[in-house]
Amino acid sequence: MRTPNRSIQELYPDDVAHCFGCGRHNPFGHQLKSFSEGDEVVAHYTPAAQQISIPGFVYGGLLASLADCHAMATAAAAAEVAAGRRIGDGPAPRFVTAALRVDYLKPTPLGVELEVRGHVTKRSDRKAVVAITIAAAGTITVRAEVVAVRVPKSME
Amino acid sequence: MRTPNRSIQELYPDDVAHCFGCGRHNPFGHQLKSFSEGDEVVAHYTPAAQQISIPGFVYGGLLASLADCHAMATAAAAAEVAAGRRIGDGPAPRFVTAALRVDYLKPTPLGVELEVRGHVTKRSDRKAVVAITIAAAGTITVRAEVVAVRVPKSME
Repeated sequence: MRTPNRSIQELYPDDVAHCFGCGRHNPFGHQLKSFSEGDEVVAHYTPAAQQISIPGFVYGGLLASLADCHAMATAAAAAEVAAGRRIGDGPAPRFVTAALRVDYLKPTPLGVELEVRGHVTKRSDRKAVVAITIAAAGTITVRAEVVAVRVPKSME
Repeated sequence: MRTPNRSIQELYPDDVAHCFGCGRHNPFGHQLKSFSEGDEVVAHYTPAAQQISIPGFVYGGLLASLADCHAMATAAAAAEVAAGRRIGDGPAPRFVTAALRVDYLKPTPLGVELEVRGHVTKRSDRKAVVAITIAAAGTITVRAEVVAVRVPKSME
């Protein structure tokens, strides 16, 4: 197990670090920070009071956003391992989302820290499928499956 | 075809109108407004500059959020029609998201107004499946399928 002290998002090249969900260069965004931990990638995030759906519960769009950005970081870490490196050895490869599948298993309570976990279930050079869980106070409330692809030419 | 001058979100009861994506009582949120138009529900939304993923393109988490909230409004309109009423005849029924499936067909350019369209493909008293498209400058860039359920007892 290895817990580097820099998040994966801090390793993205400067020109692709503006994402609203996780870009360190986006002062308005969520600034999600995901860390490698063995075969998994882990993040902690406490939603703000305004990130509400029905009173008392977290907005589903935020939960989808956390799953999305965390999955891109998870894909980046796995790509580095597959290339014989470790995440943090150099800039992290940048993935974008091709598809997002989110199942809201139960309402996620607002006011507690969430734990987001991801691991890659399938990958090729260009693509990774990432399984995500989001837990509130030890209970998994959201499961997601996210398809990540390397930033395509059309976005460069 | 009927285009009421009040959005579906303006018809949600006051105690469930705080959603970050579409609640009129959430001054920090997106305040999406969706309107009935025949069998469809339509919204227009221009993302802010900070709602960015890779520079030049809209953040996928925002697109998932728009699909999500728009689908709840689409489910509400269909539920009113199924009950023999028209949306706007009374308070709109409040749905929450059970599952969200988003396919990012191509990058969505930042800086233009988006058109979000939804229609119900399947429904029962408690549940609706909603198909969503998001178009930028006339091109569909996102397709989503969203499962909406009436607000469960556990969230009241």
